[in-house]
Amino acid sequence: MNSETQLVTEIAQELIRCDSVTPNEGGALTALGNRLEAAGFGVERIMFSDDKTPDVDNLFATIGTGGPHFVFAGHTDVVPPGASQDWTFGPFEGHVDAGLLYGRGAVDMKGGVAAFAAAAISFLKERPMPMEGRISFLITGDEEGPAINGTRKLLEWAEVQGHRFDGCIVGEPTNPKQIGDAIKVGRRGSLSGTIVVSGVQGHAAYPHLADNPIPKLVTVLSALNGMVLDAGNDRFQPSNLEIVTVDVGNTAFNVIPARAVARFNIRFNDEWTLEALKERVSETVVSAAVGVDARVSLEFKRDASESFLTRDSRLIETLSKAVADETGRSPELSTGGGTSDARFIKNYCPVVEFGLVGQTMHKIDENVPLADLVQLEAIYLRFLQRYFSA
Amino acid sequence: MNSETQLVTEIAQELIRCDSVTPNEGGALTALGNRLEAAGFGVERIMFSDDKTPDVDNLFATIGTGGPHFVFAGHTDVVPPGASQDWTFGPFEGHVDAGLLYGRGAVDMKGGVAAFAAAAISFLKERPMPMEGRISFLITGDEEGPAINGTRKLLEWAEVQGHRFDGCIVGEPTNPKQIGDAIKVGRRGSLSGTIVVSGVQGHAAYPHLADNPIPKLVTVLSALNGMVLDAGNDRFQPSNLEIVTVDVGNTAFNVIPARAVARFNIRFNDEWTLEALKERVSETVVSAAVGVDARVSLEFKRDASESFLTRDSRLIETLSKAVADETGRSPELSTGGGTSDARFIKNYCPVVEFGLVGQTMHKIDENVPLADLVQLEAIYLRFLQRYFSA
Repeated sequence: MNSETQLVTEIAQELIRCDSVTPNEGGALTALGNRLEAAGFGVERIMFSDDKTPDVDNLFATIGTGGPHFVFAGHTDVVPPGASQDWTFGPFEGHVDAGLLYGRGAVDMKGGVAAFAAAAISFLKERPMPMEGRISFLITGDEEGPAINGTRKLLEWAEVQGHRFDGCIVGEPTNPKQIGDAIKVGRRGSLSGTIVVSGVQGHAAYPHLADNPIPKLVTVLSALNGMVLDAGNDRFQPSNLEIVTVDVGNTAFNVIPARAVARFNIRFNDEWTLEALKERVSETVVSAAVGVDARVSLEFKRDASESFLTRDSRLIETLSKAVADETGRSPELSTGGGTSDARFIKNYCPVVEFGLVGQTMHKIDENVPLADLVQLEAIYLRFLQRYFSA
Repeated sequence: MNSETQLVTEIAQELIRCDSVTPNEGGALTALGNRLEAAGFGVERIMFSDDKTPDVDNLFATIGTGGPHFVFAGHTDVVPPGASQDWTFGPFEGHVDAGLLYGRGAVDMKGGVAAFAAAAISFLKERPMPMEGRISFLITGDEEGPAINGTRKLLEWAEVQGHRFDGCIVGEPTNPKQIGDAIKVGRRGSLSGTIVVSGVQGHAAYPHLADNPIPKLVTVLSALNGMVLDAGNDRFQPSNLEIVTVDVGNTAFNVIPARAVARFNIRFNDEWTLEALKERVSETVVSAAVGVDARVSLEFKRDASESFLTRDSRLIETLSKAVADETGRSPELSTGGGTSDARFIKNYCPVVEFGLVGQTMHKIDENVPLADLVQLEAIYLRFLQRYFSA
């Protein structure tokens, strides 16, 4: 191994050895901060608090002057390891075996943070100081948890501090099978809601004295299932609705229940705004309900998010070329899958996501091949070189 | 009040003052047995036991020789009173206020039992002894409970003892508004079942990796709701299916669940046998499931019952005339409503149901007008006179 591979592995191991299950900082931000400070970064730690959720520690590090201002975003908190005895090697040991580094967060995303830290440190060694242009780290300890005291507040804080970003990579494990498969350049929006049909309780033998809400809810759900939202486009797959639960909770076969509840989630593309989609869903529900004389209520969940698509060519093309130069692969520009902190960052600057291979994330024996760490570090380094020489 | 009205009220009060919430005998069968024994009946008490359900006490009383053999069926157990402090008068006090006798069981069906006991006692006073023909009482303490150690076993016991019945009145409160409205001459059958659609759990953002069972269950339920079983006939209202619950129990909006469950209950008339109905339901479920490629299971509940219609003209016409003579009303011959112990008795002899007005049954402040008790006793007496003179 050369000295760079040693550095990325060292940092990744150092981070994995911190038990930083959300909301616990566990020493991970301190370890990262020390590495960055040693390389010349100014490092700040910001603690956020909120009612009903634990305080969470966050880190902002920055170096350089003028523009462009590039920011790497990520998190050092991890999901719980489950039963430690089920792991081949301890989830917080950072053990290397047969070329694989094991531990909770190996790919999601302590490995990604280590790769960018090592790349930035290498890059700074090449550059004349003081650096022209700026590199920052926006690292939260609340991505896997309630995400209340994390990236969203850190972005607001950075704005108040006067930081303006020109581009961002979120280092989430976005590659389905191998490094270089895909860059995420957008995300579908997400809209959830609850439908309640109210009826009149009664005895199953006397249906004329009752009003069964279930057949009416079935009609409403049929209408929702039958809704064709769009056919997708060259940027996004088709929007999709899933009914995720239906609940009545009636334990008696001879009782007609008073209420029936269903919940749904929609992942939608940029053919829709959140408002237009809400209107379409409301119309569909109300029209089906009216058709069967149902008393229906529809409530949208507050955590809805808009879809977005990043079109910044400097960011996307530079990263694509770095990937192609390093791996020989031409990454797909993807918009599939779930949400991430990119949905907050897109309100501040162009943002894409690119990191390790996600296959073992959140699982027992989460691990990352050392070769992947090295390759991702190399891609990030090529990206920085191209980005700041453009 | 004359001496008969005093007797029926006295017996009803005596029974109400026994706390005989199922499975507790509470002295009620003893009180009734003493009254009947004093009038010349031979009285037996039969205790039945079963796994997983409490022992229950029952009563069989009989008088007379030869035929016909008429049996009155009923129960002295009651449903719990709920919060006693919500009652205007204590649920086990048997308090009379403004012509109303208050208490749990006043109409369901200690009042009915008292009316028949008083009628039988009066009738026996008129008849030369030993009586020609037989009158029996088949009284259970397990009608409102699991109904395992009650009427079904009592009928088997009576058969083994050599008792053969020619006709039966169940004294349940069958009149919707006033005494004489309706005689129940049959019951719809009841069939319940559970439908489970199995899918594959997954993330709502990656529906192609999952298989949501809910839309498939919705399709199956639509097919069930769309099933027209029959249009009814001159004896029965149309058969009817109610979906009584749908349950998934998924609490996460971003998770596609693995299983969805629905339960239904069908009340069906004599256009169907249980087997034919099961076949029709199975065909409907399977055909809808195949159409949407659903893995479905359908299980029928074991407590299904066939419909039945009693056609015995001696029993029905005699009772109808007794009602008409006493009330001036021509009772409807009804087959509506829920099941009762008549579904067991119909396997032994022709059976109809006729008792008090059901409006306050199972409610706080259950009560019976003393005038209703007197009128029902008078109808039962007229019935006995006609039945045994025919």
